[in-house]
This record gives sequence, C-alpha cells and structure tokens, in this order.
Amino acid sequence: MVERVAIVGTGLIGASVGLAAKRCGAEVAGFDPDPVALAAAVARGAVDESAGSLGEALAGAEVAVVAAPVAQLAVQVRTVLAESGEGCTVTDVGSTKAAVCAAAGGSPRFVGGHPVTGSEARGAAHATAELFDGATWFLTPQAETDARSYRLVHGFVGELGATPVAVDPKAHDRLVAMTSHLPHALANLIVNQAGAARVEGHDPLAAAGGSLRDMTRVAGANPRIWVDIFLDNAEELRAALVEHRRRLEQLEEALAGGDAGYLARWIAEASQNRRRMLDRAYDDPGALQRLRVHVPDRPGVLAGITQALGAERINIEDFELQHFSPERGGVLTILVAGESEAERAAALLEAQGYGVVIGPVLAE
Amino acid sequence: MVERVAIVGTGLIGASVGLAAKRCGAEVAGFDPDPVALAAAVARGAVDESAGSLGEALAGAEVAVVAAPVAQLAVQVRTVLAESGEGCTVTDVGSTKAAVCAAAGGSPRFVGGHPVTGSEARGAAHATAELFDGATWFLTPQAETDARSYRLVHGFVGELGATPVAVDPKAHDRLVAMTSHLPHALANLIVNQAGAARVEGHDPLAAAGGSLRDMTRVAGANPRIWVDIFLDNAEELRAALVEHRRRLEQLEEALAGGDAGYLARWIAEASQNRRRMLDRAYDDPGALQRLRVHVPDRPGVLAGITQALGAERINIEDFELQHFSPERGGVLTILVAGESEAERAAALLEAQGYGVVIGPVLAE
Repeated sequence: MVERVAIVGTGLIGASVGLAAKRCGAEVAGFDPDPVALAAAVARGAVDESAGSLGEALAGAEVAVVAAPVAQLAVQVRTVLAESGEGCTVTDVGSTKAAVCAAAGGSPRFVGGHPVTGSEARGAAHATAELFDGATWFLTPQAETDARSYRLVHGFVGELGATPVAVDPKAHDRLVAMTSHLPHALANLIVNQAGAARVEGHDPLAAAGGSLRDMTRVAGANPRIWVDIFLDNAEELRAALVEHRRRLEQLEEALAGGDAGYLARWIAEASQNRRRMLDRAYDDPGALQRLRVHVPDRPGVLAGITQALGAERINIEDFELQHFSPERGGVLTILVAGESEAERAAALLEAQGYGVVIGPVLAE
Repeated sequence: MVERVAIVGTGLIGASVGLAAKRCGAEVAGFDPDPVALAAAVARGAVDESAGSLGEALAGAEVAVVAAPVAQLAVQVRTVLAESGEGCTVTDVGSTKAAVCAAAGGSPRFVGGHPVTGSEARGAAHATAELFDGATWFLTPQAETDARSYRLVHGFVGELGATPVAVDPKAHDRLVAMTSHLPHALANLIVNQAGAARVEGHDPLAAAGGSLRDMTRVAGANPRIWVDIFLDNAEELRAALVEHRRRLEQLEEALAGGDAGYLARWIAEASQNRRRMLDRAYDDPGALQRLRVHVPDRPGVLAGITQALGAERINIEDFELQHFSPERGGVLTILVAGESEAERAAALLEAQGYGVVIGPVLAE
C-alpha cells in the first residue's frame, strides 16, 4: 500500500479519497487553494496534515491526487507535476480525460483517473471513506506512462474499494459521452420541453407519470459542475447527439409509415440491450420479477414490510418507495429473483392487507 | 355509487376495475372474447358474474368499462355502444383518446377515460383493487357528451380511488405524447445507441452509470402494448420528436460555440422545471435532502435501517436500494425533508457503521 498521499483539492471527492486512504493506513497530506475547503477536510478528519502550500503537501508523497474542478484540472495537473519530485506519481479524478491527459504532456509519472461516483458538488463535510466501494474507477495510462506508476495507481484505487478499468483517454470520453453526458443532456432537454408547453391550460409537468420522473432525475444537476463537463467533452457529446438525431429521424419515419414491424424490432432490441446492461448487476436478470405495492404515507410502513420479507428470508434485489403525495401515499416497487419467490412475497404482503401487482422486469 | 358495472375485457386493468368496483359494493359482470382471460378474472374474484356473451354482460349495467388493447378499442367501443341500452354509460381505459372518441361517433353516452397506472400487460391473476388509488384518471368528455353520463363516470372513477381530470381528447394525446410516449421512445433510443456502440472493445452498457440506468427503466417495455400506443398516437408523438430535435440542435450549437452562459441557463431552467414537477408530490421539494448510503448485499440490512429510522420517527419521503452486484453490494438512496432531519438520519446510520453522503435534491 502507498504510505503517503497528497490530496490537492479537498472537496467531497478529494476528502473522500483522503478518508479511504487513511482507512488503509496511509498518511494523508491535504492542500486546497481555498482555506475554507481545507479547514472542512481537516474538521472531517480526511487529512492528517493540513499543508500551508502545495509544495508542503507534495513533500514525500508517493501519490498526488488532483481533485480540482474539471475547468481547473489541466492547469493544476501541470503545476503538481512541476512541483513534485520524480518519486511522485500524479493522478486526477476528473470526469473527462482527453484534455487533462494532453495537459500532462506525456509525463511518465501521470496516470489519468475517473472514479464513477455520480458528480456530487458538496464539500468535505460529507466526505466518506465508502464513496468508492464497488465503483468503477477508470484509469487512462498512455504509451509513455511509466509501468510502475500505473501499477501504483491501479493498486491504490483498488485499496480504496474501487474496481480499476483501463481505457484510452479519448475512448473514455466517448464512453462517458454516451453513458453519462448524453443521458444528462436528454434529461434536461425533455424536462424543459415538457415545462415549456401548455396543452389547453394543462401543465404537462403536473400530468407527468413515472417514466418522465425517472428520466429526469438528473435534470438540473449542479450547473457549476455540468457546464464545464459539457464544454470539456463537447466534441464527443456532439457526436453522440448527432447519432441520437439520426436515430430519431429513423423513428419518425417508422411512425410516419405506420411501420409496426420496425417498432416491434426496435423495442425488442431495447429489451435485449437493457438486459445486457442489467447482466452486470444481477445474477439472472431474466428471472427478476417486479412487485408493485400501494402503500399509505405513514411512519412504520417500510419497516413493517422489510421486516416481514426479511423474516421469511426473501431476498430483495431492489427496493424503491416512490412517493406520490402526502394524501395519496406512494408505490413501493420490489424486485425479487424468480417467480415462486415473487408469489411468496406477494402472498405475505397481501396477508398484511396490501394490493400487489407482479410482472417480469424484462419482457420475454 | 353505481350499482351494476359491466367489464368488457378482463385483463389486468379490467379485472382491477372489477375488484375496485366490488370494493365499493357494486355488482360486476365480466365478459372477454378470450375465455382464458375471463376464467382468470373469475378465479381472481374480480367479477361476480361471468357472462357468456357481451349482451349478457351489458344487461342492466349502468356503466360499461371497455378495457381492450388500444388497437381494438375503436371497434369494441362501437360494438358496446350498439349493444347496450340508453341507460348504459360507456367508458374505456385506453392510453390514447382521440381515435376512440372519434369512433364513438358523438354518442352522448360515451365518456373516454385513461387511468394512469403504468402500462402493465399482465392478466387478471395479479389484478388488485388498489391499482387506481391515488392515480390520475383522465376523462375526455366532448360537447355532445350527456352531462349525467359524465357525472356518473366522474363519480365512479373517484370511488375507485382515482382522481378524475377532464381534458379534451386531442389535448390528452398531446399531453401523454410529451409526458409518457416521448420518454418511452427516448429510453429505447438511448439504450439502443449505447448498445450498438463499441468503444475500443468496451461495451458502453457495461460502463453505464446510474443516469443511464434510471433513464432506460422503461426501455423495451412490452412490445404488444407499445407498438400500438406509438402508432395510435403517431402524429402527436412525431410532433414531440420534432420539437425534441429542434432543442437538440440548439444544444449542439451552444456546445459548438462553447456557450457557457446558454448551458448554465438551460440547466437552471431544467432545475426549475423539475422542481415544479416535484411540487405535486412533495410539500416542499426545495427542502428535500438526499442521503446516499453504501450497503452490503445481505439479508436484514434494509430491515435494520428502516427500523432504526422509524424508531427515531424520521419521515422517509423516498427510499431506494439500487443493487450493484452480489459482491459489491448496492447504494441506498433516502430522501428526507429538511437539513436537520437529514443530519439526524445520517448520524443514526453512521452510528451503525455506514458511510453516508448528503446533498440537496434540487440545486439552489
């Protein structure tokens, strides 16, 4: 394990790296140009040593983790490379990788990184050592990267609880354009489209069902972070948007032509793709059954249900309470594996007086 | 309350109407051209009387509820209007309204309807009287609709537990194009775009984060239902897709021009729209705080957490366990109202050894 780590930028991610590194027994020095951010990391216990300068933080560090906002990453990484010694490997935690890797100018001591944790904007006060447990942590070594530096960072992020995945910087940015930046952009687009419309006095947002709510969970996410991410990855995101438009036009054509066969194949393909995506999270996504339970909005309901299912040792794969309103209560969605397990769970809940609707998660 | 109801089409929705009507004390006759479907409704106890013919089901009914698939609705509604007497008000439960209302040919006895329950395809075996509790139930009376018929259906769906909302049939289809059919179409489009791509050997679906998963929950939904819905509402859906493309092009332009101001305003608008959407479900969406908790994949974890929060009377607004994998466990997301309540919940969970990250649901 790495013995001494320097954290440069002690916001939520930087401070969480500090806590996770301390959990592994490393000594952690922290520096932030903003003394308030640094003090918060100290208060949280995320750094052993609050450095008065960048150089002080870097002194003796085997790994320096640059956890600056995307717009400042390139400059910060260059500075840290310049101020650190040959024995120090430098990495970062930015959501885009091509620009920062280019800024590192082929330094053998630099290994780009990106822990996929969801982009939280909050400071160190809520940093947690568990933030990276089970997360994918992209690493973007290049031809000139020193093998020892790569192995060091690879081992380090593994110790923090994450799963390192090596990928080329440009490929990384194309991947996240498709899997994160495009979904974020579409969430903003559709909530704004629905929000701008009035249909004979009705506000579409007031008529929104579960699908619009699910699809816009990330809409309006922190502009301070997302403007920079969108701009930094503008080229790849635009390519993804162009491809999205091409697919939209195909769909419009199929609708104009009343092409039921096209639509059926298109939905079947979506079902298969969704299954492939879920394959990673579940042993057998095809066996998953969804139970929908209407529940009143009062304390104790969740505890009662989870206890009853737990007592019968029914294994809950996913569990979601979506709140409709204080008067009308909400809908609880429970995923369990296997039809017989689903029937057993439904019988238990029905015995408690709840109405339950069962269906498969993936259509056959 | 209505004393005698005829259900024409005893799938999940029809049988659930039957159960909910019986809950209110009504006598329910059921008919389905498919004897297997009818037998399932009888087995479920959703009908008092299994009719041998449509005419038999309609005899004496004050309300006939046509719960046929969208593609068969127009024909079925015409048939039911022709075979029922002047004292019988006819309604339907289809997801689109313009075509079926036109098919009713200006009958004063017809009131189009659409309970918003999520489009479940399953049979009567899992019908439940609670399906409509708290749901919006669109009603589409027209100029020629008899006021008594409208009042009857309005009262009836209210008794079933739903909230009736009157809207013009064309306006209804425009509303659901924007709030349901467009989101469904986009979910299919983006999962297929990610699924069709390979980025230097990486499968984007394997790299998918939470945003792609949330946005594609409805992807691949039952083709038997959705092909017909998309085709029936093709005109309004195409209009929504065209508007979506127009907005895409604006975004692409902003990205090409590096227009940070545009992006910031666009995200802020999305945040406001999302807040407006949530205003309906929560007393004060601005106060909502999100807690993210990493939990291991083992029985009893959920029960332990819900009990601990329940014992301290912390009111949980939303609650979601999203499973990552059997080895890596999952992330639990809890929404509570107010920062102090969030801090209290976090302290409780941290005392149980969990790491907790807190942030506001809506950015300021």
